Amino acid sequence: MLGYAFMGKAHSNAFLQVRQLAWPPPLQPRLVAIAGRNADMVARSAARYGYERSSTDWTDLVADPAIGLFDNGGPNSVHAEPTVAAARAGKHVLCEKPLGRDADESFAIWRDVDSTGVTHLCGFNYRFVPALRLARDLIRDGELGEIRHFRARYLQDWGADPALDTWRFHASDAGSGALGDLASHAVDLGRFLVGEIASVSALVKTFVSGRDVDDAVEAVVEFERGAVGTIEATRLALGRRNALQVEVNGSEGSFWFDLERLNELQLFREDGDRVRGARNVLVTEPEHPFINYWWPPGSIIGWGDTFVHEIVHLLGAIAGDHTVGPDAATFEDGYRAAEVCDAMLRSSRSRRVEEVVYRRLP
Amino acid sequence: MLGYAFMGKAHSNAFLQVRQLAWPPPLQPRLVAIAGRNADMVARSAARYGYERSSTDWTDLVADPAIGLFDNGGPNSVHAEPTVAAARAGKHVLCEKPLGRDADESFAIWRDVDSTGVTHLCGFNYRFVPALRLARDLIRDGELGEIRHFRARYLQDWGADPALDTWRFHASDAGSGALGDLASHAVDLGRFLVGEIASVSALVKTFVSGRDVDDAVEAVVEFERGAVGTIEATRLALGRRNALQVEVNGSEGSFWFDLERLNELQLFREDGDRVRGARNVLVTEPEHPFINYWWPPGSIIGWGDTFVHEIVHLLGAIAGDHTVGPDAATFEDGYRAAEVCDAMLRSSRSRRVEEVVYRRLP
Amino acid sequence: MLGYAFMGKAHSNAFLQVRQLAWPPPLQPRLVAIAGRNADMVARSAARYGYERSSTDWTDLVADPAIGLFDNGGPNSVHAEPTVAAARAGKHVLCEKPLGRDADESFAIWRDVDSTGVTHLCGFNYRFVPALRLARDLIRDGELGEIRHFRARYLQDWGADPALDTWRFHASDAGSGALGDLASHAVDLGRFLVGEIASVSALVKTFVSGRDVDDAVEAVVEFERGAVGTIEATRLALGRRNALQVEVNGSEGSFWFDLERLNELQLFREDGDRVRGARNVLVTEPEHPFINYWWPPGSIIGWGDTFVHEIVHLLGAIAGDHTVGPDAATFEDGYRAAEVCDAMLRSSRSRRVEEVVYRRLP
Amino acid sequence: MLGYAFMGKAHSNAFLQVRQLAWPPPLQPRLVAIAGRNADMVARSAARYGYERSSTDWTDLVADPAIGLFDNGGPNSVHAEPTVAAARAGKHVLCEKPLGRDADESFAIWRDVDSTGVTHLCGFNYRFVPALRLARDLIRDGELGEIRHFRARYLQDWGADPALDTWRFHASDAGSGALGDLASHAVDLGRFLVGEIASVSALVKTFVSGRDVDDAVEAVVEFERGAVGTIEATRLALGRRNALQVEVNGSEGSFWFDLERLNELQLFREDGDRVRGARNVLVTEPEHPFINYWWPPGSIIGWGDTFVHEIVHLLGAIAGDHTVGPDAATFEDGYRAAEVCDAMLRSSRSRRVEEVVYRRLP
Repeated sequence: MLGYAFMGKAHSNAFLQVRQLAWPPPLQPRLVAIAGRNADMVARSAARYGYERSSTDWTDLVADPAIGLFDNGGPNSVHAEPTVAAARAGKHVLCEKPLGRDADESFAIWRDVDSTGVTHLCGFNYRFVPALRLARDLIRDGELGEIRHFRARYLQDWGADPALDTWRFHASDAGSGALGDLASHAVDLGRFLVGEIASVSALVKTFVSGRDVDDAVEAVVEFERGAVGTIEATRLALGRRNALQVEVNGSEGSFWFDLERLNELQLFREDGDRVRGARNVLVTEPEHPFINYWWPPGSIIGWGDTFVHEIVHLLGAIAGDHTVGPDAATFEDGYRAAEVCDAMLRSSRSRRVEEVVYRRLP
Repeated sequence: MLGYAFMGKAHSNAFLQVRQLAWPPPLQPRLVAIAGRNADMVARSAARYGYERSSTDWTDLVADPAIGLFDNGGPNSVHAEPTVAAARAGKHVLCEKPLGRDADESFAIWRDVDSTGVTHLCGFNYRFVPALRLARDLIRDGELGEIRHFRARYLQDWGADPALDTWRFHASDAGSGALGDLASHAVDLGRFLVGEIASVSALVKTFVSGRDVDDAVEAVVEFERGAVGTIEATRLALGRRNALQVEVNGSEGSFWFDLERLNELQLFREDGDRVRGARNVLVTEPEHPFINYWWPPGSIIGWGDTFVHEIVHLLGAIAGDHTVGPDAATFEDGYRAAEVCDAMLRSSRSRRVEEVVYRRLP
Repeated sequence: MLGYAFMGKAHSNAFLQVRQLAWPPPLQPRLVAIAGRNADMVARSAARYGYERSSTDWTDLVADPAIGLFDNGGPNSVHAEPTVAAARAGKHVLCEKPLGRDADESFAIWRDVDSTGVTHLCGFNYRFVPALRLARDLIRDGELGEIRHFRARYLQDWGADPALDTWRFHASDAGSGALGDLASHAVDLGRFLVGEIASVSALVKTFVSGRDVDDAVEAVVEFERGAVGTIEATRLALGRRNALQVEVNGSEGSFWFDLERLNELQLFREDGDRVRGARNVLVTEPEHPFINYWWPPGSIIGWGDTFVHEIVHLLGAIAGDHTVGPDAATFEDGYRAAEVCDAMLRSSRSRRVEEVVYRRLP
Repeated sequence: MLGYAFMGKAHSNAFLQVRQLAWPPPLQPRLVAIAGRNADMVARSAARYGYERSSTDWTDLVADPAIGLFDNGGPNSVHAEPTVAAARAGKHVLCEKPLGRDADESFAIWRDVDSTGVTHLCGFNYRFVPALRLARDLIRDGELGEIRHFRARYLQDWGADPALDTWRFHASDAGSGALGDLASHAVDLGRFLVGEIASVSALVKTFVSGRDVDDAVEAVVEFERGAVGTIEATRLALGRRNALQVEVNGSEGSFWFDLERLNELQLFREDGDRVRGARNVLVTEPEHPFINYWWPPGSIIGWGDTFVHEIVHLLGAIAGDHTVGPDAATFEDGYRAAEVCDAMLRSSRSRRVEEVVYRRLP
């Protein structure tokens, strides 16, 4: 594990729960080592999460033959080098989103890692929210018909504090602001649920002085298969803490969703019944995605539990049970999301629609 | 009254309720005449709504000296000529939205009517929803701080039926589709709540074959004072019947609203309390806008009641108690909304950001 | 009309809207006279609502041969005498709920009025909420199976102000407090939706000093057909303005409802679908009860509009189109609700289950 | 650990997460042994959850000096003997609710365990829901004023399947049905939030044939300090999966809560603001109870996480950091809840109000 803060904690907790909830797990993780910059903090984290050792130098982990999976939960600026190095050392890799700080860096990570043949997963964990997986399944099964609209907003408000500073406000560390941090999730869900994004028209804006990354992005998107909609992200929506709101309308039905109520899916299907209305589906039934891991119906799961689903899936892929995609995001998906985000930045500068051109591996 | 269908019914009912709910009313309406194309239908409507007579020729109404207010609730294609003629005959005018079928026609209506000196009001009735009026008051009083985001979606689904035909699907009658019908409301609310719109980037699309107007519009908008956001409208959002959803985020607070729950305002203000959260304000208190007309607290009002508020306001303006704007939309506001909608159409064709340039009267 | 305050206003508005919304109406009301105690106020009300004359003496109305329907919207203490006198004078009668101040008075009103042969309706207007009428229809059609539970709470909070005084706090005027005012609605809906109530066990309590009526009632109820549940009413539920919340569970499905969102019905039916969940039915479709009177789908109606439905129904009954019951409450229903409320009072004193014994007319 | 099914899984997962989330934990659990009836199943559970060994005989665990805490998650009929035996062997004990199958058995467990001096906790885990803990704190701090009403319903629907059989439907195994399983949670929350229950009037009923325990209970309750309200529980509320709904009204404010949205608290306080309304508090802020363990604001936790809170609290009590009560339920609280449930049964038979008489230890 690289990183002991927010994502380090979430991933470590997930590794520990794997065997609790999926039995037998595809592979049983052994927590070999955790790396981070501050020696005291990383040692404390190692003790807490049960890693056998800690290090202030990620190259130690890359060099360690006992390590088979390298999980990169560090800041965006330390995604590329350690992840590629780990893959070159033959380790499977999980890298948090956004894959790189821009499309070029993301492409290079994908290219370099893919060439090594290891298994790679990019941490778009909302593909592992049961309600969104169920929505994907319903769309895939044609229950919503031809998709016409995709709308996603990722609204947070912690950026409204002008006194706050973090690596997330600095371009050299983060690449971009709400764009790479939040809008990238919406982009990935658009691709996951509806298909490839063909073009974007966007406006990216910084409101709070002293930041060299964006606070907010507003975009119109068009999908290759014809659906149109919007993607928005902001860190300035006071009263919205973690509101990733998604709505999809098709010719036969619709769904809408809010991450602040992540166990619920509002689903409408045109069925001619006199009692017309969207169902509030509490996605906690045994037949719902991932729920066989958890509790009886009606007992909700938490945000952190999506990482357990993601990691079990990754372990299954490493074990050869299935591929990483399309259920999870590969590094190619990580790159493609970055390409859409870059097109949004270009569009904001050019003030025109920008086509999204996806590069392919040689 | 011109028109006896949807808007004819809504306005007629409102005229009748004026004296019930505002007493003494600024002026007591007398329902002199109603005009429409079908003689039987219009006669029946006259009997039903209590008009003294009916006519199949709107010029009869324009010529009638007993008529002081001409209310145009007909299809968009009969907005311009009768409204201008009535004004030239010295009658005050109420015209349903959109004012004209495009910005040019709207400008001409405004110019020609304004030059007569009569009182004019454009029927953007959602300015008269108590929750939205309260939101406007809160913004005006600075309770949300500097406004950063405006998001509005007007989602309906009746257009999903490919077998349906109506004047609303024909450009010659309607001008545009979801754009003029639905997005124009969102545009007007943006102007009402946040201020003038400076530029737009939009995508306008028709999904259902056989229609020469749009089914949906997706737009990024930028306001003159710096706020950014999106405006969307569609007739294809299955499960959404009349969902005009508005959210505004400022530096001190936010609100969100859905017309399907028109008596509720979700209001968040940053106040440092450990119980942080948006209040669900049921806008039915005596001190809330318009509620002194109605029932005890907790007793909700209906969609049709917004027209009562609008008409009482218009009567007050005619009586000289106050001006039409800024609480209601004047014909200038009707024209300005059309200018924004036209910019959206231009942007969809040019595939670039379009500035909105507002013409002024000579 | 007797009474010009809260109910006088609501009923008068409804009489006026009858012809607007139901055309042709079963009978076209003519607003002959309104009576009330204060000469100035009642004269003003007459002018406002369009009554031909006003009076401070209700016997004037009873004596007036031009009056065919006597509508009693006065305080509970003036329900009995005027209503019976009007019926004896051959007038049809509408009396607000509760019918009398207790079961004895209510029985006498029913008995005396019924013997005259006039049409009588007791103003339990929530039978005319479209969502609750739809729920009744679904139950009647067996879509929820055998009913097992009925839960109703009527929560208001205006009684929390200890400085407030009104006739509603005095037993001689009101009979009881939250019991007759609020719980009676819940009792009537229980009878309307599920059937006759067989027994009750209740606790009636006054919290605020200086009142000789109850602030709150809590009751367990058992229905003749076996369903069990609770009925609660209070004027002290801070934050609840007009929250009549009803839930019914059957062997095949359930619904729940809140009067503060009176256009919505949450409906669950066991159908084996993987997307299990209650539908949020926006009861504004043309095929829903009463909605053909109103606006396009998604355009909600208001609390006051339930009175229009009620009065159109009464006019239809007077015209001979149908009977008052079971869709509306007759005076027998008014009496029966009072008998249940009296049993709750008895139970609170005896501290035991009380059977409800319904008297019949000789 | 005794039991490997539902509660065995939930508790085992919680033991594992202790060190992840509270660091340093008050004590670091070591998972020594798990016992259950089926040798294969219990061995598999031991492997899965990381216990060092498994046994089909709980006396093995009681005899094992390596075990310091005995966690009883078995069926109600195996609560008494193993729990008391473990305590007599000097082990601290956690016993799932209901403590015993009735008040007598519960009292005996409490008495016998308490006399040994070990630490004891009864698994009313909803005291560890952050939103309910916050509500308790607000009440304790006087922010809701004098409490007047407590309403709680625990609604589930899995009992509607007549073909289902489980130990929970048999009196010898379970003691009672919805009463001990579900209503006991509501009783405990009433005591936790509002204070001691003085009397009850209840109706207990079995709808589905072949069960010798109740399907549903309906009760009126009165608290020693004067609040009145209702407690309901049923396994037959179709569409309600795990809906523990609680509402408390005080003289200064109210809250309401639903376990199906366990991260949210609806909080109303009378503050004279023109924007009157209950706040929807997403209880995921760092300053909210237990949240420092978890994720950033807006990232919800799950139902299973309440057990982590409970077990960390128990470990702290064993470590001497604090007492078990009043934040958690002791065995005395387990007994007292049983005494209230027994009074409900007595009331249902006697058809009268039953006082709750709490026994004390000699």
